[in-house]
Amino acid sequence: MAKKNAFYAQSGGVTAVINASACGVIEASRENKGVIGKVYAGRNGIIGALTEDLIDTSKESKKTIEGLRYTPSGAFGSCRYKLKDLNTHKREYERLIEVFEAHNIGFFFYNGGGDSADTCLKVSQLSEQMGYPIQAIHVPKTVDNDLPITDNCPGFGSVAKYIAIATQEASFDVASMAKTSTKVFVLEVMGRHAGWIAAAGALASREDQEIPVVILFPEVPFNRAKFMATVQSKVDKFGYCSVVVSEGVADADGKFLADQGLKDNFGHTQLGGVAPVVANMIREDLGLKYHWAVADYLQRAGRHIASGTDVEQAYQLGRAAVKLAVEGKNSVMPTIVRGSGKKYSWSIGEAPLSKVANKEKFMPKSFISRDGFSITPKCREYLEPLIQGEDPPPFKNGMPQYVKIKGVAVPKKLADFEL
Amino acid sequence: MAKKNAFYAQSGGVTAVINASACGVIEASRENKGVIGKVYAGRNGIIGALTEDLIDTSKESKKTIEGLRYTPSGAFGSCRYKLKDLNTHKREYERLIEVFEAHNIGFFFYNGGGDSADTCLKVSQLSEQMGYPIQAIHVPKTVDNDLPITDNCPGFGSVAKYIAIATQEASFDVASMAKTSTKVFVLEVMGRHAGWIAAAGALASREDQEIPVVILFPEVPFNRAKFMATVQSKVDKFGYCSVVVSEGVADADGKFLADQGLKDNFGHTQLGGVAPVVANMIREDLGLKYHWAVADYLQRAGRHIASGTDVEQAYQLGRAAVKLAVEGKNSVMPTIVRGSGKKYSWSIGEAPLSKVANKEKFMPKSFISRDGFSITPKCREYLEPLIQGEDPPPFKNGMPQYVKIKGVAVPKKLADFEL
Repeated sequence: MAKKNAFYAQSGGVTAVINASACGVIEASRENKGVIGKVYAGRNGIIGALTEDLIDTSKESKKTIEGLRYTPSGAFGSCRYKLKDLNTHKREYERLIEVFEAHNIGFFFYNGGGDSADTCLKVSQLSEQMGYPIQAIHVPKTVDNDLPITDNCPGFGSVAKYIAIATQEASFDVASMAKTSTKVFVLEVMGRHAGWIAAAGALASREDQEIPVVILFPEVPFNRAKFMATVQSKVDKFGYCSVVVSEGVADADGKFLADQGLKDNFGHTQLGGVAPVVANMIREDLGLKYHWAVADYLQRAGRHIASGTDVEQAYQLGRAAVKLAVEGKNSVMPTIVRGSGKKYSWSIGEAPLSKVANKEKFMPKSFISRDGFSITPKCREYLEPLIQGEDPPPFKNGMPQYVKIKGVAVPKKLADFEL
Repeated sequence: MAKKNAFYAQSGGVTAVINASACGVIEASRENKGVIGKVYAGRNGIIGALTEDLIDTSKESKKTIEGLRYTPSGAFGSCRYKLKDLNTHKREYERLIEVFEAHNIGFFFYNGGGDSADTCLKVSQLSEQMGYPIQAIHVPKTVDNDLPITDNCPGFGSVAKYIAIATQEASFDVASMAKTSTKVFVLEVMGRHAGWIAAAGALASREDQEIPVVILFPEVPFNRAKFMATVQSKVDKFGYCSVVVSEGVADADGKFLADQGLKDNFGHTQLGGVAPVVANMIREDLGLKYHWAVADYLQRAGRHIASGTDVEQAYQLGRAAVKLAVEGKNSVMPTIVRGSGKKYSWSIGEAPLSKVANKEKFMPKSFISRDGFSITPKCREYLEPLIQGEDPPPFKNGMPQYVKIKGVAVPKKLADFEL
């Protein structure tokens, strides 16, 4: 087999550990020089491929590539851009082939979530449908933890750890203040459709140190009266209560709670989060003093408190993608397979992309407590291993020493392309 | 001198390191058994003294007290309660004396900010004005960093480190997404009157790794047009921009930006934060896609990423308070004195409470850049040493192992007291 170059790109919302996967892909590729030539990274994801804006990762030092393991977010730039159907939008695919041919690219590593798996699947079909030989391997990544088949998704363990610790620490705070001041703390977390991240808030509470946490899942229609009764009962028992609310919580009619049609003094519509909405309801219904926080990017960028397990899995899945490529595979994704023993263990499996693309994995019913406001022991058993271990970045002058790539562009060979 | 017991209490908003001061007070008191008997902690601050709800810290193990050094928030409970004037509200002071006498209390350690220093000052006057012998020592604490005389306040260094890292990490995130999605990230931070915490956002940017950060200080009247021009220029240059906005930002008329008179569909007033307001303005004026976060309690409870310098200073000020007590001092506060050398050093001084109580230290003009949206090199020189060093708590099963006290109550000797 003639040696081919590889294309690597990051897609969709970034995570604390997606660069650890990039590190795995690049390091493993460098170890397989007989099969894989250079790794060209798309600047800003697939857009980099379409516009022939490629970063030559061979110009990055060994130290910088190692540094990607502990640097959050997408070092090569990500994008939200979904390739359209091959039959109706052939132009984009022809352009991809043109770019791949011009740069002798035979491997396509795409690092993303469900939408991105669809892009990767479409690229994998170039081989069959358009006669261009390419092996497309998807490297899973999503804080939402909603990809099928894989036991969990890189990026999720770290955001889960972040939310568990944020809930724990803020609960300590509100507990201190509750006698004369704040009694309820509301934390808004990501997860528009699946409640995996919200579920992690429950890990703040432990058998030997109970913390009252009420969770609002997107999977459970919001029932205001039932919610208020639950919050009040926690405040009665503990003196305070923490609420972890998923951004995607909706009422029985499917209307997002965050969408309150708020208007300012001039009648302009204001877009707010769901946390202030829930907090205001608590004030109205229970008259309790509250504080609220919206973690937003902080939760998925919080590399300083990433899960060691998550970092290692993200890195190893990057390496595994290269292994699959070297073995001649196409249209697959390496997965995390949980061992069956009582002690947590994991290994790497593989899944066909056709079974991964465009599928969302929601919280199973058996993971949500009967009242709808907490998790079951089964869910805790699933979540706890994923937040194990700390893997802090190096610090200098009090700050994490994250790396930035040089990002040297591969000289262009083609005419410009309009997106 | 006959041996007397000590009273210790936490007051006002708690911090990531106020328990480190408690640890210092209790450990140093245990080392001075010849002078100080037991340390009784007020449950929920001064309310614990008024209601004779005292926690016997001698019932807490050495290990628990050591654990306070790395446990955030107020382990004994805090309160927002300000003693009124001695002449008009004598009843409360008489009650304090009653409780102190009943429990042989001769030392009063009060751990709080400016308002609390006022309470401590009033208690110190019991000695003179009401003939009850007590030594009142204030242990400084405030994330707002607004106490006079002391170079900085315990609690601030850790929140500054939290905000600097949050800004850095979120900026990495938005930089990755900016090509096709979010271009501006808005982070709301604490600081109603003083912009110290907001200033820390600027530490995200370093000489060797520039990050575009625009800061909105409460000290600088909000000028919408000027702000938008600054944000747009950063986006033009870097492709993205981060905004750190203090909760207390107001316009030229002194009206808080957060106070937008938002009403929901039913006409109910909604209380929101300033971050969504600023984000909405950016959408309206510049049409840029944004994300926003409100750190709220997470920033002051974030012990997992506390500043090592801050932890050590909080602990040593607790110890210093005991030293002052043993030396026979009354109505004083130990302070942090910055060394004059080029390399950062600090030692402990003391200040009379009359010069501390009810005084706020704002950002000096020389610390805010001429355009009003950043900090000066002088400010950076002041801030950087305060976030140095990491001092993570012990972890178990992926979570910080914070301690909870047993909180054994001292048997009551007096009749109940109505607050």
